[in-house]
Amino acid sequence: MTAVTNPHGTTGTLPIGEFRPERGGRLPHAELRYRVFGDLALAREHGAILVFHALTGSADIDSWWEPLIGPGRALDTRRHPVIAANLLGSCYGSTGPAPVTDGSFPVLTTADLARAHIPLLQQLGVEHLALVTGGSLGGMVALQWGLVTPVPVGRLVVFAAPGRTMPQAIAWNAAQRMAIEADPAWAGGRYAPGHGPTAGLAAARAIAMITYRSQVEFGERFGRLQTRVPGRFDIEHYLRRHGDKLVARFDARTYVQLMHAMDLHDVGEYAPAGRTTARRVGEVIGVGIDTDILYFPSEVQEWVIGYAAGGARARYEEITTPYGHDAFLIEFDQVERILRG
Amino acid sequence: MTAVTNPHGTTGTLPIGEFRPERGGRLPHAELRYRVFGDLALAREHGAILVFHALTGSADIDSWWEPLIGPGRALDTRRHPVIAANLLGSCYGSTGPAPVTDGSFPVLTTADLARAHIPLLQQLGVEHLALVTGGSLGGMVALQWGLVTPVPVGRLVVFAAPGRTMPQAIAWNAAQRMAIEADPAWAGGRYAPGHGPTAGLAAARAIAMITYRSQVEFGERFGRLQTRVPGRFDIEHYLRRHGDKLVARFDARTYVQLMHAMDLHDVGEYAPAGRTTARRVGEVIGVGIDTDILYFPSEVQEWVIGYAAGGARARYEEITTPYGHDAFLIEFDQVERILRG
Repeated sequence: MTAVTNPHGTTGTLPIGEFRPERGGRLPHAELRYRVFGDLALAREHGAILVFHALTGSADIDSWWEPLIGPGRALDTRRHPVIAANLLGSCYGSTGPAPVTDGSFPVLTTADLARAHIPLLQQLGVEHLALVTGGSLGGMVALQWGLVTPVPVGRLVVFAAPGRTMPQAIAWNAAQRMAIEADPAWAGGRYAPGHGPTAGLAAARAIAMITYRSQVEFGERFGRLQTRVPGRFDIEHYLRRHGDKLVARFDARTYVQLMHAMDLHDVGEYAPAGRTTARRVGEVIGVGIDTDILYFPSEVQEWVIGYAAGGARARYEEITTPYGHDAFLIEFDQVERILRG
Repeated sequence: MTAVTNPHGTTGTLPIGEFRPERGGRLPHAELRYRVFGDLALAREHGAILVFHALTGSADIDSWWEPLIGPGRALDTRRHPVIAANLLGSCYGSTGPAPVTDGSFPVLTTADLARAHIPLLQQLGVEHLALVTGGSLGGMVALQWGLVTPVPVGRLVVFAAPGRTMPQAIAWNAAQRMAIEADPAWAGGRYAPGHGPTAGLAAARAIAMITYRSQVEFGERFGRLQTRVPGRFDIEHYLRRHGDKLVARFDARTYVQLMHAMDLHDVGEYAPAGRTTARRVGEVIGVGIDTDILYFPSEVQEWVIGYAAGGARARYEEITTPYGHDAFLIEFDQVERILRG
């Protein structure tokens, strides 16, 4: 375990030893890049906070939830150390398929991604968690954490994530896979690092971006505004720019790997899952987003109701927004109110 | 004009001479492949019916609206000749970009696609239309027909089409363009006929298929059923199959051409458009589909209200369905009821 401590907390890479994914294969020397914001010593008195990032996120909570983390903020580093790791399988410092060119990287599930955090908490000496949270893929992993957490959790706050991934969401991922495969640089995932399918990944990102937002926002923001290229609309420029930006910072193998984890996401029957979760988790809050077209609010409500039926203290909250799925990364006031509880 | 008459009607290819698209360029020798179902002589007494097909459709109404056309059916060939042409720009017999490898085919708009039918009606000697109808792109063209029709129209029935294309719908098209471009066989549209971007077009079709259906249908039909390939879901198999099927029957240049016409679709301000339409059209019916995520019912309502404000006799009807946008090709009972008026 290499770790650097500075006034802003600790950054490190933690070897978690051999990791055996539930669907087979093994990672003999898995590592997680992690960050701790605030003073770990506070964990003993107040508990730590554990945060899981979304599909293309990282352990750098201060970049994507900047207004929510820090002294006095919703994730209050004066009271709690706030811990995040780059998910197993991702490309921001943790063990993942990005450098693996022979297709041998094993399938990971959201349960695997949660479970990989157990050694991290052990090494950091965290014995209870005040709050566990995440959105989208991070929300799925948070739900799975409720089933495997070795330490007590005060509140589990899950943003914009279903209990199991429904076919339309799998369909969006399938279309993205097809777009990536249409780019011959994909080569079945057997490309040299840095030589991946840029046009395919950009097209995939464009598909995803539409599902992350809403027609309400697009209507208000872009309408039928056009660029200087005749017949080319601003909305298309926006999508292409987002495609280019992702290609510059993300690996296609990682993207495909984590999309597959999302497809496979399934906590099982909701009442038993709620019963298991209630053993160690004080309260579960499922947060739907009213304009979310990727994971519909009804899907969040469904597992909340099931969890409650299974004996968990579970309730539903909703973010009201024109921004769609991405609202958990945009509507900071509402996210803060929910995180503060 | 070459035409073949048989008991099922007339099939032919009509030279419409030079065609000048509104955004520039020219087609010196444009042709439309058309079909007439029933006896043209009936047109004088009862009026003809004109039908416009959707993005990947053709003049063969009897293949995609089979239960709706024939003696005694909603498009009653005992009373009316039913006329359809393959849209200008398409690849089922009309002049389009499919064989044009140098990128010189001009941009077409939905107004162009409507206008190209004027010489067809003239040649067929049709002097009034009892009904004009179409869905999706066909609905857009039907709306444009209301603005340019040289002959009186009894009813104009527009299924699942907006008065102008909104940015989310343009975004779906943009993502499809990006998927097609990710396939190097696209080559900016400069491929030899038959050597187009199969993987790119299949990915585009997969995106489109999701927007044509609904999460309700996918949920009921596919749920989380899996194929024999571990971790591969039925919904993905379905999308890939639809991708393959389209690639076998459609040209990518044509697809891109007609998507662009859809992006550009805009009848202008609704009240003036309604006023113009009311000059020759007796009644305009806008049909929304309650689960349509491509062209929302609210978008149909919007132009209906505007048309009515402009003095058109316009009203809104709605199809109730789990099938989403494609319901105008599936919910035949409801479509029939609306077409019969």
